[in-house]
Amino acid sequence: MTDRPHTPLLDTVDVPADLRKLKPEDLRQFADELRAEMISAVGTTGGHLGSGLGVVELTTAIHYVFDTPRDKLVWDVGHQCYPHKIITGRRDRIRTLRQGGGLSGFTKRSESEYDPFGAAHSSTSISAALGFAIANKLKDEPGRAIAVIGDGSMSAGMAYEAMNNAKQAGNRLIVILNDNDMSIAPPVGGLSAYLAKLVSSRPFLELREIARRFARKLPEPLHKAAKKTDEYARGMAMGGTLFEELGFYYVGPIDGHNLDHLIPILENVRDSDHGPVLIHAVTKKGKGYAPAEAAADKYHGVQKFDVITGEQAKAPPGPPAYQNVFGETLAKLAETDKRIVAITAAMPSGTGVDKFAKVHPDRSFDVGIAEQHAVTFAAGLAAQGMRPFAAIYSTFLQRAYDQVVHDVAIQNLPVRFAIDRAGLVGADGSTHAGSFDITYLATLPNMVVMAAADEAELVHMTYTAAEHDAGPIAFRYPRGNGTGVALPAVPQKLEIGKGRVVREGKTVAILSLGTRLAEALKAADTLEARGLSTSVIDLRFAKPLDEELIRRTLAAHEVCVTVEEGSIGGLGAHVLTLASDEGLIDAGLKLRTLRLPDMFQDQDKPELQYDAAGLNAPQIVDTVLKALRHNSAGVEEAGVRA
Amino acid sequence: MTDRPHTPLLDTVDVPADLRKLKPEDLRQFADELRAEMISAVGTTGGHLGSGLGVVELTTAIHYVFDTPRDKLVWDVGHQCYPHKIITGRRDRIRTLRQGGGLSGFTKRSESEYDPFGAAHSSTSISAALGFAIANKLKDEPGRAIAVIGDGSMSAGMAYEAMNNAKQAGNRLIVILNDNDMSIAPPVGGLSAYLAKLVSSRPFLELREIARRFARKLPEPLHKAAKKTDEYARGMAMGGTLFEELGFYYVGPIDGHNLDHLIPILENVRDSDHGPVLIHAVTKKGKGYAPAEAAADKYHGVQKFDVITGEQAKAPPGPPAYQNVFGETLAKLAETDKRIVAITAAMPSGTGVDKFAKVHPDRSFDVGIAEQHAVTFAAGLAAQGMRPFAAIYSTFLQRAYDQVVHDVAIQNLPVRFAIDRAGLVGADGSTHAGSFDITYLATLPNMVVMAAADEAELVHMTYTAAEHDAGPIAFRYPRGNGTGVALPAVPQKLEIGKGRVVREGKTVAILSLGTRLAEALKAADTLEARGLSTSVIDLRFAKPLDEELIRRTLAAHEVCVTVEEGSIGGLGAHVLTLASDEGLIDAGLKLRTLRLPDMFQDQDKPELQYDAAGLNAPQIVDTVLKALRHNSAGVEEAGVRA
Repeated sequence: MTDRPHTPLLDTVDVPADLRKLKPEDLRQFADELRAEMISAVGTTGGHLGSGLGVVELTTAIHYVFDTPRDKLVWDVGHQCYPHKIITGRRDRIRTLRQGGGLSGFTKRSESEYDPFGAAHSSTSISAALGFAIANKLKDEPGRAIAVIGDGSMSAGMAYEAMNNAKQAGNRLIVILNDNDMSIAPPVGGLSAYLAKLVSSRPFLELREIARRFARKLPEPLHKAAKKTDEYARGMAMGGTLFEELGFYYVGPIDGHNLDHLIPILENVRDSDHGPVLIHAVTKKGKGYAPAEAAADKYHGVQKFDVITGEQAKAPPGPPAYQNVFGETLAKLAETDKRIVAITAAMPSGTGVDKFAKVHPDRSFDVGIAEQHAVTFAAGLAAQGMRPFAAIYSTFLQRAYDQVVHDVAIQNLPVRFAIDRAGLVGADGSTHAGSFDITYLATLPNMVVMAAADEAELVHMTYTAAEHDAGPIAFRYPRGNGTGVALPAVPQKLEIGKGRVVREGKTVAILSLGTRLAEALKAADTLEARGLSTSVIDLRFAKPLDEELIRRTLAAHEVCVTVEEGSIGGLGAHVLTLASDEGLIDAGLKLRTLRLPDMFQDQDKPELQYDAAGLNAPQIVDTVLKALRHNSAGVEEAGVRA
Repeated sequence: MTDRPHTPLLDTVDVPADLRKLKPEDLRQFADELRAEMISAVGTTGGHLGSGLGVVELTTAIHYVFDTPRDKLVWDVGHQCYPHKIITGRRDRIRTLRQGGGLSGFTKRSESEYDPFGAAHSSTSISAALGFAIANKLKDEPGRAIAVIGDGSMSAGMAYEAMNNAKQAGNRLIVILNDNDMSIAPPVGGLSAYLAKLVSSRPFLELREIARRFARKLPEPLHKAAKKTDEYARGMAMGGTLFEELGFYYVGPIDGHNLDHLIPILENVRDSDHGPVLIHAVTKKGKGYAPAEAAADKYHGVQKFDVITGEQAKAPPGPPAYQNVFGETLAKLAETDKRIVAITAAMPSGTGVDKFAKVHPDRSFDVGIAEQHAVTFAAGLAAQGMRPFAAIYSTFLQRAYDQVVHDVAIQNLPVRFAIDRAGLVGADGSTHAGSFDITYLATLPNMVVMAAADEAELVHMTYTAAEHDAGPIAFRYPRGNGTGVALPAVPQKLEIGKGRVVREGKTVAILSLGTRLAEALKAADTLEARGLSTSVIDLRFAKPLDEELIRRTLAAHEVCVTVEEGSIGGLGAHVLTLASDEGLIDAGLKLRTLRLPDMFQDQDKPELQYDAAGLNAPQIVDTVLKALRHNSAGVEEAGVRA
């Protein structure tokens, strides 16, 4: 293709073994070609740009120096792995990134032996790498494990837990701290300030210093002298770093884009018996692509874009994104309600908390990648009379499940959970799907669980949550844009545990929770066209159930189907349990539950994902028709009724 | 009572306001009396002894100096709160600790305004205290928040996340690190080594030094000079501590039993504008009670004991504890299977991993209070061909839910979850109940979920899990002792997703999962006596279900009841969903699901808890009889059949 960059060196490299045949002096050009190829690919597909650009040299140097895939390279989060994918046998598919049937936007074990550990959530890499290192140690097999982790990911407790346990890995574990002073949003907290101090207080390590650090490779007497000098020098310059206190041998800071430094440092680390080592590499997110360097956050995740101008394809104009409806509604409510506080865990724009923060900076808290702290901090605020909203994606709230149970639900504290990215999420795939929150929340005593059917409902639910001081309350809504309904001028306080009848019918009832309501209404149209009078109910609440409405609906219709954007154990299970508890199933009940299937679904367009999941209108119709044909002997009859 | 200690000063103190009327020189005697009273009380009730003894002086000093309950005192874990309870209006009930209807063994909001935040799981205190501090700041109200956290709790990522966010609280937040070099088991990891270094490298702070630290209270010019000296001194002595790097003003180490030091330090901290402050107090677990001092771990949690001799009441001899059956089985399997590795998160004896560690120290890993790391570390081990067992209590596995989903289930890695303390747990109450794991695990694709009906089944399941390399597998079992069945000489590899018919009947079927099997069998006896032929099935698997057996059972019996030691969304929900998916409910099905109720249950004897939960034999019988009486019109009929 004509718009592909000229990449003569990269063209010789299919896998890292090919890379290792290059001369060190060729690596600079190789990295430039790799960078150009990556920009070209992401221009075509969209995806995570800035992070990958920041690690082109690191990727090159690690694969050049270490014996991948025998040595295990674990990328934290994995959104920076595009250059890695290009040089580990996947260049031919790099322009299918994040597309249905294409390459994942993250590392993935099933894709390549060069991806020993998949990721997408942050801060798992050191724990996983430690697992590889210890396994090799126990098996007495060779092989190092290298975790590459960003400074933002270091703020999560999980990374700290792993560092606290790292010492036992000895020199089999190498952690590369990729410090670009930027995760998705600007970093927050004490660790970030500390890293900034480290970087600003001393120049990058020079080769002479690096050599001294690894003086142990010198003959013994020389080694001893050098070691003393070394320790003295380190003590004077740093006073001992946080990482050293936790048991790491700290090397840095170093320039993460300077291959002439990276290569010898990695070689030294590879060959030394110091361990575990933490290499503090300073990089620039978006490095080498001017539009991305200029606005690293904007280019974290991008649409397709023009490589020359950097201009991104615009999303077609349409209804507002759910996250913004939430953020703007909350900001407005907070104008008159001084108790409202918003908390995000490093996702201010993704959750819409940025809209709130703009108006109420003093009541907005970005705690970094720290969902556990976010939830218990919210519990403390609630205990002291505030009205905290913890705005966390469904999949990330899993990180704080114990805090939801132990600090919020058991104490019945009114923490409001604004759960974005509920249900299937498209290009981010299975790791980001919000599949389990209905199940894991609705099983908790004291918890209220709502799901918004559209953006107007989200406005009502945000307000309802604000006003709900009796205990914890959660409301979930999907990724993406609303349905285009008019937003209410005045938000309505919903009655807890009450659904609404959206459409009244006689034979069939569809009990919907969340944004499948639109598909339920389409299905009802189809069924009506077939002569089947169909009710559509928006239950609004998975817990508490609108028992009275459900009882009435089950009694009045021939077939009832629940629909939810969640896995087994959620709404459908709760409705079935009610029907069983009360003996409503004893005399026969055609009740079906549609839910996410028992599998992790790969990335694709959301509507195709929901089709594969069996949650679109045609499958709702099929389920109804099949149930109608099902006779009392338990076998399916042809041609009955429909 | 004659055996109560003589406590003239303590007798004048009902609440902290009374304490504050004492003269400083009386506090030593007061603390001694408080200690004696606590030893006497725990001698009567059993409970957590060593931790409370270690904080008698801290408790006294904090309540003496700070304005509780306006100032919020948050005890981490809360098992050290007995002295606190004695002087905050609960002395009259202190001998009901951990008994049904009595005081909780932890802090509890519903018990007292002096317990602003309940706990029982570790490492939540700094987050919660930060919530109180920030709420007061936003409301512009006075009031500090004091978190008291042990060195063991500091190893959890959550504590680090909170410290990383603490700076914004300014001087409203005070963290007291209660460093007794011992959580439940000896501490592990880099942090612990670091704390030990801090303590050993310098003497306790003297009063002169303390005064210098808070020099800001001096007139400005003096202050400036003092501050310079102060910083210089700190820089020389410490080089900056880990806590200072995270933004705390570090004070310490100090002798946590010396009231003459504690009181002025706390007063200084209270009155200064330094903040947030971390006070590093060194204490001795079991302080002041010789038997406990001599063996701090042994006296972490105790039975009733003789105050004079320290001798604990012996549990009556009986079947082995489940945890030991697990640990010993795994140790034996590991003799021939070199891939087996055991991981515990600071609970070596509670999980039985100590039995494994004794035989296979190199393959046993205590990662500290770090469940997140434990699970992902296990995932890394599994990815590299090991057979890791993560032995974690049900309630603590909640801490690692995202790691179970993201690192294990999505990647389908064969991590074995040995889930102890499943179901209700007795004296530890709602915070420790293992109520939700069936629900939150069985909703995950790829996951296998088993529950052991007795200790022989646990042997089989441990072996089955070891041999299951196809993906993740979990097996749950309760707190306490087995049923007394003979342990199998040779463990049996169970077929995945297959239950067993324990008793064959015709009219009623009880489908049991876990140790309710004994109650199911008792219920069957009662039903048989009433002429109702009853099958009892041990399903063994919540996921995958034994669909064929369930289909057959539902078809062949008039009434079927599922029983499980878990909350809604688990086994019962899965069986109902199967019955609905396949249209088995269409023609009428008397199927009921017994499960834990929709409430958090307080501490009591387990059998009474299960009675309250409706999961004992009489309630199973009632459910069956009620279902039988339920006629096709959906109303209960009297006198039908039974």
